[in-house]
Amino acid sequence: MARVEDVYRDAYAGRVTGERIGETIRVAGWVSRRRDHGGIVFIDVRDASGVVQAVIDPARLPAARDLKLEYVVSVLGTVQARPEGTANPDMVTGMVDIAVEALDILSAAEPLPFMLDGRVDVDERTRLEYRFLDLRTPRMSANLRARSKAFHVMREVLDDLGFMDVDTPTLIRSTPEGARDMLVPSRLRKGSFYALPQSPQLFKQLLMVSGVDRYYQLARCYRDEDFRSDRQLEFIQLDLEGAFWGREGVFSTLEAVVAAVVKRLRGVELDTPFRRLTYAEVMERYGTDKPDLRFGMEIHDVSPVVEDSEFGVFASTVASGGVVKGINAGQSEMSRSALDSLGERARTLGAKGLVWLVKEEDGFRSPVAKFLSDEETSGLADSLDATTGDLILLVADTSKIAGQVLGQLRLELGQPKDHDDLAFLWVIDFPVFEVEDDGSLSPAHHPFTAPVDVDEMGESPETAISKSYDLVLNGSELGSGSVRIHDPAVQRKVFEILGIGPDEIERRFGWFVKGLRFGTPPHAGFALGVDRFLAILQGERSIREVIPFPKTQTGTDPMSGSPTRVDDEQLKELGIAVRPEVKADE
Amino acid sequence: MARVEDVYRDAYAGRVTGERIGETIRVAGWVSRRRDHGGIVFIDVRDASGVVQAVIDPARLPAARDLKLEYVVSVLGTVQARPEGTANPDMVTGMVDIAVEALDILSAAEPLPFMLDGRVDVDERTRLEYRFLDLRTPRMSANLRARSKAFHVMREVLDDLGFMDVDTPTLIRSTPEGARDMLVPSRLRKGSFYALPQSPQLFKQLLMVSGVDRYYQLARCYRDEDFRSDRQLEFIQLDLEGAFWGREGVFSTLEAVVAAVVKRLRGVELDTPFRRLTYAEVMERYGTDKPDLRFGMEIHDVSPVVEDSEFGVFASTVASGGVVKGINAGQSEMSRSALDSLGERARTLGAKGLVWLVKEEDGFRSPVAKFLSDEETSGLADSLDATTGDLILLVADTSKIAGQVLGQLRLELGQPKDHDDLAFLWVIDFPVFEVEDDGSLSPAHHPFTAPVDVDEMGESPETAISKSYDLVLNGSELGSGSVRIHDPAVQRKVFEILGIGPDEIERRFGWFVKGLRFGTPPHAGFALGVDRFLAILQGERSIREVIPFPKTQTGTDPMSGSPTRVDDEQLKELGIAVRPEVKADE
Repeated sequence: MARVEDVYRDAYAGRVTGERIGETIRVAGWVSRRRDHGGIVFIDVRDASGVVQAVIDPARLPAARDLKLEYVVSVLGTVQARPEGTANPDMVTGMVDIAVEALDILSAAEPLPFMLDGRVDVDERTRLEYRFLDLRTPRMSANLRARSKAFHVMREVLDDLGFMDVDTPTLIRSTPEGARDMLVPSRLRKGSFYALPQSPQLFKQLLMVSGVDRYYQLARCYRDEDFRSDRQLEFIQLDLEGAFWGREGVFSTLEAVVAAVVKRLRGVELDTPFRRLTYAEVMERYGTDKPDLRFGMEIHDVSPVVEDSEFGVFASTVASGGVVKGINAGQSEMSRSALDSLGERARTLGAKGLVWLVKEEDGFRSPVAKFLSDEETSGLADSLDATTGDLILLVADTSKIAGQVLGQLRLELGQPKDHDDLAFLWVIDFPVFEVEDDGSLSPAHHPFTAPVDVDEMGESPETAISKSYDLVLNGSELGSGSVRIHDPAVQRKVFEILGIGPDEIERRFGWFVKGLRFGTPPHAGFALGVDRFLAILQGERSIREVIPFPKTQTGTDPMSGSPTRVDDEQLKELGIAVRPEVKADE
Repeated sequence: MARVEDVYRDAYAGRVTGERIGETIRVAGWVSRRRDHGGIVFIDVRDASGVVQAVIDPARLPAARDLKLEYVVSVLGTVQARPEGTANPDMVTGMVDIAVEALDILSAAEPLPFMLDGRVDVDERTRLEYRFLDLRTPRMSANLRARSKAFHVMREVLDDLGFMDVDTPTLIRSTPEGARDMLVPSRLRKGSFYALPQSPQLFKQLLMVSGVDRYYQLARCYRDEDFRSDRQLEFIQLDLEGAFWGREGVFSTLEAVVAAVVKRLRGVELDTPFRRLTYAEVMERYGTDKPDLRFGMEIHDVSPVVEDSEFGVFASTVASGGVVKGINAGQSEMSRSALDSLGERARTLGAKGLVWLVKEEDGFRSPVAKFLSDEETSGLADSLDATTGDLILLVADTSKIAGQVLGQLRLELGQPKDHDDLAFLWVIDFPVFEVEDDGSLSPAHHPFTAPVDVDEMGESPETAISKSYDLVLNGSELGSGSVRIHDPAVQRKVFEILGIGPDEIERRFGWFVKGLRFGTPPHAGFALGVDRFLAILQGERSIREVIPFPKTQTGTDPMSGSPTRVDDEQLKELGIAVRPEVKADE
């Protein structure tokens, strides 16, 4: 009855070591190298475990002459020690080869569009068009394995901690403001649409209302946004939420998860707990809410030193309520023109100008040196801890702009190119609200984020601190979270400050807010961007390198050619049509 | 700097046992029961772990008077033995209660739309509208926990077996025939669409081409189809594929996964390997390709017994190439009118009629008894193993219809109402092709399924057997899979038999078939419907009971009100419009 399949192999290529000499084995895989050598054919057979060399006599097995790169073969043969002088001790299987007695060509391969040994750079579009080949390269197969391991480790830690994996729906209600929502037309209710979730936020909060104690999910999320910033239309986040939980629980859980992943992928034990800095501190010291702490070069406010300077820009900026801030960019060999182009860069970033000074044995070399008193130069050197040869950069502007510009210059001058070091940081005590340019307030995180002090929030909403937090790694935000509001009175207060009336609440959040009225436990959570985290751990610049089948920066898949036009008949069944002006475009 | 959260609890309600008597603890949860008793308030506090009773003196803690069902509280108190006669040995925490010293009401609850003790049936729409409450019921919270455990166990087994978890994209290329595809309009390429995947089939096969050895994924899939058959627009399947793999590997892996899940959720050790029957056998014996093997009542062809019968229908049916088939429905107390309505049912199912016979001490009681010879009655009794009191049902028709009708009657008369027993079955040796009503052939599984014998397939495609297989549990198909074609010559042959020319191949499968040309290993796989499997294990009739936030049978979510209308402005950004005739409908 049962027809047993052919057996293609009984050993993994990468595990054929000296211990197996004399055994007859069968391995199967791809021909990753082929050499003709005095009438004998040597091939490397590659499978997921690694590579082993096989030696074939084409006089006995003529099919060996047909073999080309990336053919799929199954070879049966005897493991033997390689002849003296030909062993390769750097390879796991380098001491042996297989003397082939039977060769099956399971599948042929057309000539390759690019070589798979990673020795030549291939443009990304071609790599994505042939992703099934690209994933065979050592780099990409290592990235795939790392991703799978990371998933496994994350789940292992959270399962051990008693978290429940709950899958939330991905065909959800669109939000009225969901300009970035991806929509899915309904066939049964023509003219109506589902949205793909930007995150499981509302559902995970409702799971807390449902009595789930600890929730997690490696959740597929969708955001239809600008691709230039190395994002993808679909991405995976490790989504967490807990009832009767607070920030400390979130932090220790995340630290356990992150440390386990780093241990597994990097073999490194992280120090925990991670460092914490408040939002106010990081903005002051690094000019950004996601500082890279792998290097110093901190921003210092030197206004007190230069407020009476003869250099009028400094004095007038401080007098009009601005600041003069600076960084010590360290030992610099920059030419005059390089320094000038730094000034250009600062102006591109929004500064009115940039002052550079190089510390010399005695005072500073700088276009503005002659305007600075001895007291000022020594004050600057002290404030910025400058020693001979150090480059000082100063920006006089509003505190916000001076910080932003110096924060960016700091990154461009100091940030390591690789990710060998890992600097984790919790940024805490974010404001509840952001002040928009028109003076109105918007939620800094989302409107369900709990304030630290409700009365304080009522009195001075602009400066009120929330219970939200970010996790930062090497200057990238890995994720964010918060303690949520569980008290309707607090929620009403937040909506009131935001100027959101009952009708708007109902329209925007009605179904969710209703859920909160039937006994909501205090709860808190977090969402970690898995793709970014993996890219950093694998030392990759783009998240596309750690996603099995990513889209390009314009949202296309060169392999399958999606997205595509669709028959109008098919659209008709969904009750939609492509707008005439779009059709005309093509 | 760090502001530590309030501590809401230091113990789980369901774990407060006699061992803790005398300790001061804090638990937090929902008020699931409230009684006033001689001026003392008794409440049950429920959290995810269970329930504990708390005793509050409202004279000391007046807030106790405000408590209502499903309020969220945190109570601090001393664990004490319950007074004699009030203990409840059936509850884990039934020997103790908490003498409350401090009571915090963390959150109030509006009056509930239905009680959560599961004692009253609530209509499903209301349950889904208040899913966040429904999930608090013992039944639903048990289903949620079971789902999470099943996910965990499946991954654990597969991780141990060396499978890699790879996430395939969910915004993919639409297939030209994808009438059931759900579409997602692209914002960046207005007028173009992505499709949501009906399964990761093509991507997982390309992963094999990519050199992944063993792949799995708990994959979200989408199918825009009729909801009447207890399906969902989105569902989760355990998706597997392996290179250099065949049926036996797939079977033993699935058996390990399934047995581990059953062990975990049911505490039962399954016998493995599972039973196997060929497609031809199950169609013959059960009239369906997903037989329920928990009971016998097999179909027998009794044509030889009645081919010369005086009962003309039997004789003429056999004479014209048809058959007479029967089942023994066992001891029956059916009234004459019940038996007649069985005949009605058979006609509804497509039979021309149904003959019933009840075995008596001597011969049969039946409307047709008088036409049957002694030889025929004893032959029928022998063939169908009938003893006194057994009900025999016979259908004379084509073999296909007789089998279908009796297969369905068999289910209706014999199928257990619960799922206490679990009968797993592999159905193997499916045909490669199905013969359509117009005589044309279509793939029985999909066109990439390997035939058992290529030459045989060329000679008689209608009867050729493929390497596909189904897993059946208690009459439900849990999933299906196959060995795939890896040889281009075989693939061409299949397309040729299906009448699919090069242009059509290119248009329908071009990007995928291209992938197969660069060295494709032999591979095989499977997809298991997780929702159905869980519903059976949890004894639920509908998959909606084991899905956290399901849609109704018409694809709507009564909780959030999706799908919804969307502003035309928002659609404009996507380059689409609702068709005018649809707008007019509303």
